Amino acid sequence: MDMALKILEEVHQFGIDRRTEPIIAIGGGVCLDIVGLAASLYRRRTPYIRVPTTLLSYIDASVGAKTGVNFANCKNKLGTYIAPVAAFLDRSFIQSIPRRHIANGLAEMLKMALMKHRGLFELLEVHGQFLLDSKFQSASVLENDRIDPASVSTRVAIETMLEELAPNLWEDDLDRLVDFGHLISPQLEMKVLPALLHGEAVNIDMAYMVYVSCEIGLLTEEEKFRIICCMMGLELPVWHQDFTFALVQKSLCDRLQHSGGLVRMPLPTGLGRAEIFNDTDEGSLFRAYEKWCDELSTGSPQ
Amino acid sequence: MDMALKILEEVHQFGIDRRTEPIIAIGGGVCLDIVGLAASLYRRRTPYIRVPTTLLSYIDASVGAKTGVNFANCKNKLGTYIAPVAAFLDRSFIQSIPRRHIANGLAEMLKMALMKHRGLFELLEVHGQFLLDSKFQSASVLENDRIDPASVSTRVAIETMLEELAPNLWEDDLDRLVDFGHLISPQLEMKVLPALLHGEAVNIDMAYMVYVSCEIGLLTEEEKFRIICCMMGLELPVWHQDFTFALVQKSLCDRLQHSGGLVRMPLPTGLGRAEIFNDTDEGSLFRAYEKWCDELSTGSPQ
Ligand SMILES: NC(=O)c1ccc[n+]([C@@H]2O[C@H](COP(=O)([O-])OP(=O)(O)OC[C@H]3O[C@@H](n4cnc5c(N)ncnc54)[C@H](O)[C@@H]3O)[C@@H](O)[C@H]2O)c1
Ligand SMILES: NC(=O)c1ccc[n+]([C@@H]2O[C@H](COP(=O)([O-])OP(=O)(O)OC[C@H]3O[C@@H](n4cnc5c(N)ncnc54)[C@H](O)[C@@H]3O)[C@@H](O)[C@H]2O)c1
Ligand SMILES: [Zn+2]
Ligand SMILES: [Zn+2]
Repeated sequence: MDMALKILEEVHQFGIDRRTEPIIAIGGGVCLDIVGLAASLYRRRTPYIRVPTTLLSYIDASVGAKTGVNFANCKNKLGTYIAPVAAFLDRSFIQSIPRRHIANGLAEMLKMALMKHRGLFELLEVHGQFLLDSKFQSASVLENDRIDPASVSTRVAIETMLEELAPNLWEDDLDRLVDFGHLISPQLEMKVLPALLHGEAVNIDMAYMVYVSCEIGLLTEEEKFRIICCMMGLELPVWHQDFTFALVQKSLCDRLQHSGGLVRMPLPTGLGRAEIFNDTDEGSLFRAYEKWCDELSTGSPQ
Repeated sequence: MDMALKILEEVHQFGIDRRTEPIIAIGGGVCLDIVGLAASLYRRRTPYIRVPTTLLSYIDASVGAKTGVNFANCKNKLGTYIAPVAAFLDRSFIQSIPRRHIANGLAEMLKMALMKHRGLFELLEVHGQFLLDSKFQSASVLENDRIDPASVSTRVAIETMLEELAPNLWEDDLDRLVDFGHLISPQLEMKVLPALLHGEAVNIDMAYMVYVSCEIGLLTEEEKFRIICCMMGLELPVWHQDFTFALVQKSLCDRLQHSGGLVRMPLPTGLGRAEIFNDTDEGSLFRAYEKWCDELSTGSPQ
């Protein structure tokens, strides 16, 4: 909030006309979130434009209407819903993103793949390493019969995200597949900051949830194995020592309280298919947790 | 903003469920504005209820969707638009309001009367002193053929206000009669704080604007005289030494900049009738200013 207020002072001194001069936020997700909040507060609403410059913000924060800042040691506890007047998408920014931050963005892409798009999952399985190597820059000359994984994957990820967000821009409906990977990870992220990036924390959460799905019979062992291998191919962490079972319990308990008494847990029910569950029992959660630790704490699946 | 953040910390520690437990703001306009902002930021939107306890907030801040705090020495520079889930109106709170603050609220009521409701103006002309004396409490036994000025005037003021606000809740339309008295007064208020109350600053602004209307032939001398007398009957200031012509120029110039190039000046065109003007020339504004000072700086009209 301090940073948002600092930006507001600059905006004020600069003296913009809020009817005709939008604020332009150019940066990663944190920048877009903070500047978006500042814009929504200035004179009760000043138009702003999002220009995402990281892979994660390109496919995620570029879409939707959320702004936010951390508060009282909680992630994005304060914020507003206000759609930007436009989002300018230019993949060339991603050239200068470090490899670890590309993987970070791939986690959010994998989330959409697991929830809604088997084709995108298979693309990430096959082309994950290529995308990491090429930093999402399209080859200047493409052979005619080859797809361009960078443009296809970003387009599909954004379209799939829009499909979920557009009918629920103000989050009135609490059953959200886009929450996958975001049930335990916010508390993990705040706990270990700055050790994990957002997408890394999300991926660890997703990996655990894949074990939950498998435990209650929604995924086969083989599907689980393919998903975890894909995550590893994307160079994403699949386990973390601070992701304790106590943290799982606390996070789900908080979520119950804030989600109208239902836990609303998105779980994959196949590759690229998912549903919301409210009745996962503690026993299954714990058995999945033990198995997850058994198999992944040493760094390789099974 | 400091106060809003303090409230947010308390809300956070209290641990409300934002789906089922609204924040209840009980107080004057300042309290409703600040708590409203806090509620709109907490988890990106927490429902809140307004319980106005001053006359001004009863007829004005109870309606509409604005929240706000001062920033960079500017009134309500930061804020949001978010309607309360309900406003509970109970005139018995007004019993304990000091006489000067009753007059303060009457200024906003007079604004609506001058813009839109001749009947309300005449009620204030006749019953102004009675309303000040009785602090808007209805007599327990009313003679059958008498109207109750407290209930009629508050009802009409709120209905008239709703008529203006409801179709323009997000202030997309910049031509607003409710801006009457609010063109110069924000800068006057910030300049002399805490010497003037909000409604007093508004009334001084309205008194000057009545002289502008008269100068350009929209009001007769007699109508002007009746309005100024009514203001005095409501025990409101009609002139202030810090309301300089330079302040008028600066305020209108800022407004031009923030209102899409038009000054959008609401002016009375009769008793209870008004229009928006964009072509008032500096000469008329100055002659009205001189006349206003001549006639009112000594404390009595003409
Ligand atoms: N509002 C939303 O809808 C939404 C959606 C997803 C994520 N988020 C938020 O976004 C944050 C994560 O975003 P992020 O991953 O972009 O992190 P980030 O904004 O912290 O950026 C990561 C780093 O990359 C640097 N950087 C940015 N662009 C660069 C470029 N082109 N080249 C080199 N370096 C560059 C930044 O300065 C920063 O150091 C999280 O806090 C998350 O909560 C918000
Ligand atoms: N959001 C809106 O739509 C809106 C509309 C109109 C005015 N406002 C804002 O409201 C403010 C003015 O409101 P206000 O006149 O209520 O001032 P206020 O909120 O400052 O209250 C005036 C004083 O009365 C006290 N008080 C409140 N209720 C009382 C009661 N029942 N008995 C005794 N004392 C009481 C308060 O503690 C305060 O000291 C201005 O800042 C104005 O900008 C906002
Ligand atoms: Zn995320
Ligand atoms: Zn006002």
